[in-house]
Amino acid sequence: MSWNTDDVNRTLEAGAPALYAALSPLGRRLFYPPDIPAQAQEAKGRSFNGTIGIFTDGAGGAVPLPSMAAALTLDGDDRNRAFLYSPVPGIREVRERWRGWQRRGVAASVPSTLPVVTAGLTHGLSMVADLFGGEGRTVAVPAPFWGNYRQTFALRTGAAVSTAPAYRDGHFHPGAVAEALSAAPEGEPAVAMVNFPSNPGGYAPTRGERDELRRTLLEVADRRPLVVVCDDAYAGLVYDPEVPRESMFWELAGAHERLVPVKVDGATKEFSFFGGRVGFLTFGVDLGEEAAAALENKLSSLVRSTLGSPVALGQTILLQALRSGKAEAEIREVFEIAERRYRAVRPALDDLDRDLLRPLPFNAGFFVLLEIPEKLGLDPQRVRRHLLDHHDTGIVAIAPRYLRIATCSVAADALPELVRRVERGVRELAGLTR
Amino acid sequence: MSWNTDDVNRTLEAGAPALYAALSPLGRRLFYPPDIPAQAQEAKGRSFNGTIGIFTDGAGGAVPLPSMAAALTLDGDDRNRAFLYSPVPGIREVRERWRGWQRRGVAASVPSTLPVVTAGLTHGLSMVADLFGGEGRTVAVPAPFWGNYRQTFALRTGAAVSTAPAYRDGHFHPGAVAEALSAAPEGEPAVAMVNFPSNPGGYAPTRGERDELRRTLLEVADRRPLVVVCDDAYAGLVYDPEVPRESMFWELAGAHERLVPVKVDGATKEFSFFGGRVGFLTFGVDLGEEAAAALENKLSSLVRSTLGSPVALGQTILLQALRSGKAEAEIREVFEIAERRYRAVRPALDDLDRDLLRPLPFNAGFFVLLEIPEKLGLDPQRVRRHLLDHHDTGIVAIAPRYLRIATCSVAADALPELVRRVERGVRELAGLTR
Repeated sequence: MSWNTDDVNRTLEAGAPALYAALSPLGRRLFYPPDIPAQAQEAKGRSFNGTIGIFTDGAGGAVPLPSMAAALTLDGDDRNRAFLYSPVPGIREVRERWRGWQRRGVAASVPSTLPVVTAGLTHGLSMVADLFGGEGRTVAVPAPFWGNYRQTFALRTGAAVSTAPAYRDGHFHPGAVAEALSAAPEGEPAVAMVNFPSNPGGYAPTRGERDELRRTLLEVADRRPLVVVCDDAYAGLVYDPEVPRESMFWELAGAHERLVPVKVDGATKEFSFFGGRVGFLTFGVDLGEEAAAALENKLSSLVRSTLGSPVALGQTILLQALRSGKAEAEIREVFEIAERRYRAVRPALDDLDRDLLRPLPFNAGFFVLLEIPEKLGLDPQRVRRHLLDHHDTGIVAIAPRYLRIATCSVAADALPELVRRVERGVRELAGLTR
Repeated sequence: MSWNTDDVNRTLEAGAPALYAALSPLGRRLFYPPDIPAQAQEAKGRSFNGTIGIFTDGAGGAVPLPSMAAALTLDGDDRNRAFLYSPVPGIREVRERWRGWQRRGVAASVPSTLPVVTAGLTHGLSMVADLFGGEGRTVAVPAPFWGNYRQTFALRTGAAVSTAPAYRDGHFHPGAVAEALSAAPEGEPAVAMVNFPSNPGGYAPTRGERDELRRTLLEVADRRPLVVVCDDAYAGLVYDPEVPRESMFWELAGAHERLVPVKVDGATKEFSFFGGRVGFLTFGVDLGEEAAAALENKLSSLVRSTLGSPVALGQTILLQALRSGKAEAEIREVFEIAERRYRAVRPALDDLDRDLLRPLPFNAGFFVLLEIPEKLGLDPQRVRRHLLDHHDTGIVAIAPRYLRIATCSVAADALPELVRRVERGVRELAGLTR
């Protein structure tokens, strides 16, 4: 097909009007021209193919340096895939198998696009920010939140982050997104972040809380086009058996014509593959063939102009797990380590002196979040530094009064002592023992 | 250090005034806050470290899925490095070894920063575009040029690409950059692309041409802050023994106080590692300790907010070559394959009917560039399609009248026939045989 930018925009507007309405100025400009990768795609299988700037043996095979090839056990097609360029939207087999992985247990009637490969989840978020951010756009984020949301959306694109408390009286507050958008200009498109299990507070909402959250999001969508970004980094890591493990994405996909669910997920945490940089971007709208191609054109334009192509090496390694039939069992083993840590830290949290530290709800994910009571007037950075200097202990400080403990990187038997040291440090600074 | 954005800007302005003057609005805003990665860095080595959201065995070791770990032969520290997050500016050993690799044969007095790791060369270019591009900024690009420069700089950031002919009367034209900037507002900062060996025309300038180019760039810098981006993707691939192989970067580093040389290079082509996505960004200015830290702060902010962290897996594989002491010899073997193709295609180019196709200067790199004489009035896309449909042959069409043959992906013995088919296709369309 030989589209231009206008064709792509018109097709998207017809097939996905809310998505189109929410595009940023950059989002409207994005267009993947019929240049080298597209021309190389068309030349595939020709006897004489001098299209793509990739060094091969002349028959499509990679020519890796022996010292680097020795680091991989892969051979044949997979070795070639690992060392050569990935297609711009990702290796087809990886995209299809990931879609299958995502949709385990999801009804066939729920719409979702073929995922586009990103260089990890932050890259997926930055693509969403490029597509839907920009000056004057409101991004609703329940607080406390992962600080990189601010950098990805506000610092880079100029969007305005609007927050509301994620917890009220020590409980999850499902109305936070709607509250954060209450001052946004009537009818204007907006973006909302939904992150379960969450970071920095390791929480996944109950059935009732999810239903309430869904209701408030649909209500917002009655009044404005709403892009809901489901940051599913910690997918599946829920320790309370009563609490749903599936992504909220599947409850939002196809639920409202002005709600555009976007799923940001990937191998980083779910497949314990931090260094590989393989993420995915999936849209929960039934686009039809034409509009899906138009959206993929825009996403490809973004990948091409920021990365060239995604990480073939990481995709090829991930493929080994997706093909093995063992991914679920292997992930279960990692989950069990995480769950043992949860069981180990739980009693230590229950024993905390509430006048010094108040744990926020914790039933999932990688992190315990502790609130320093406001009346202590303690800067969490001061607590962090005190713990580094006097208690041989590192934790993360989050303004205005939170401490985050990453249970994901601490052995189960060390966690109770770590929590005690944090409490001791706060007690010392609060002057309660002096 | 607990800097804020103003501190970083002031430090950079004092230590590198031309670089600071050329920053885009985004470049000025960039600031790497003391959030999670910075706090995790400070907590390194503490007995109780609950800072970073990375799943480990509790003692810093990776917990990869067995089906994925089996794809690598690495063990110990290298296996951990491959599966865990990279530091945001890159793995220290990789950065230091790459710097050593870059500076082979370079005098110690020539300044260059410790390279920051990017996710391949396009990502390095997109970082340069974010730093120095933006609305109203002129980017000088000799034409014909790699189309992705336009997407990276103009489509994404709104900068204006200004071109001038890279070749005049069939010869390389060293004044192209200066010519492309002649209409830019007096005194305004500008960006210039320097790409040798070049794409799409595989050319590296002679000693005399390089001297002339350098002279014109220094002249431009007398009149405006000038960021010169040396796109060294095809570093070293020069087939003419009389022609210099080193990057122009080393002739520009430290040469003029208003000229800011930036080197974009990496493993993609130089180490035949297309799928790994490992590139580097290096500045050719003597920054001093403080300003170097300020620049790394900005670059880290950009990596963090677009990628999270660079590809640890690719860096770890590249490290095997950098450590082996065999990189030069192994690269030489790849180069010899490329050189055999050069020797094979050269006579076929010399035999071309100049009324149908005119080869542009070709002595280096991955590509032969052929010009269709203007008087034939042939659209190169039409030629490309004709070759696909009737000659089982794929090449790349570049507006307004160029055809590019990638010798890098065609066997030496197939190249003469490929060139003949291209000539035959043009002859048919030109109607000369009818």
